[in-house]
Amino acid sequence: MTSFEDLIRAVPDFPKPGIVFRDITPLLADGAAFARCIDAMAEPWLQSNVQAVCGVESRGFIFAAALAQKLKAGFIPLRKPGKLPPPVMHADYKLEYGTDRLEAREGTIRKGERILLVDDVLATGGTLGAARNLLEQLGADLVGASVVIELLALQGRALWPERVPLRTVLHY
Amino acid sequence: MTSFEDLIRAVPDFPKPGIVFRDITPLLADGAAFARCIDAMAEPWLQSNVQAVCGVESRGFIFAAALAQKLKAGFIPLRKPGKLPPPVMHADYKLEYGTDRLEAREGTIRKGERILLVDDVLATGGTLGAARNLLEQLGADLVGASVVIELLALQGRALWPERVPLRTVLHY
Repeated sequence: MTSFEDLIRAVPDFPKPGIVFRDITPLLADGAAFARCIDAMAEPWLQSNVQAVCGVESRGFIFAAALAQKLKAGFIPLRKPGKLPPPVMHADYKLEYGTDRLEAREGTIRKGERILLVDDVLATGGTLGAARNLLEQLGADLVGASVVIELLALQGRALWPERVPLRTVLHY
Repeated sequence: MTSFEDLIRAVPDFPKPGIVFRDITPLLADGAAFARCIDAMAEPWLQSNVQAVCGVESRGFIFAAALAQKLKAGFIPLRKPGKLPPPVMHADYKLEYGTDRLEAREGTIRKGERILLVDDVLATGGTLGAARNLLEQLGADLVGASVVIELLALQGRALWPERVPLRTVLHY
């Protein structure tokens, strides 16, 4: 059985100099490993009555959609600006330079709906925090968050509130 | 049981005047309907020994990842330019104005690997055709293609070779 770590390639200086990119495509391409990864992500939430899994565009969609299938839940996309038809709500967050925005379609989340938030990587935590804000604005009952890779050096977890469980599968 | 059609909203003049956008977010958000949609997409390929499901960024990722989970197959992303670390291969295709490009990571597809290609909408067929070319360049054995919505008026199917089965769930 190949370990997850052996199926994640470190790509130096991508997308820019000084960044080590964690390439998950070998893990995804291996059907058995992808299924084990989804099992590991699902395990903490099997008894949580998750009604919908919310994925952050684009790589978050991959894990969130597979988890939705596994947990027999709906899927809700959080998208980059301009991709969802109106009416939308948005949350902005800071990048190293400038800001970015996530949008959710109004009306796809019911008040008090039990939502699991999913993304591929937890780095500085900006994206995941914006996603949490947006879901809470929309009235979601946020059951927790599940992320595949946590980059410990960037301390993204420090920005995350303890009241919402955050589970990660791999750590670098 | 809500029909798929009742869960797809027609949004006039999005993303630009004259276009009727088919908004699938209500279908995705409904766990039971999303599962039925994935069952319908999977059904023709249950005996096809699909080794990996290939999804086109971004909405194609949602259906392809859920299908990979369902078929116990791997997942391969075809991405917009610059998102995948090198080495990549690409295929270009025409848009109404200009061209666009899909990229695949070299080495994630093995020669002769049995691949199912997945996207959300078949319109003019440009994207799906480029995806097929790219997968065949990479040595894939393309089992078929599965698309959720076929826009019949745009005749995308006319560009698709008969030798590769193409299945769609809904037609407008």
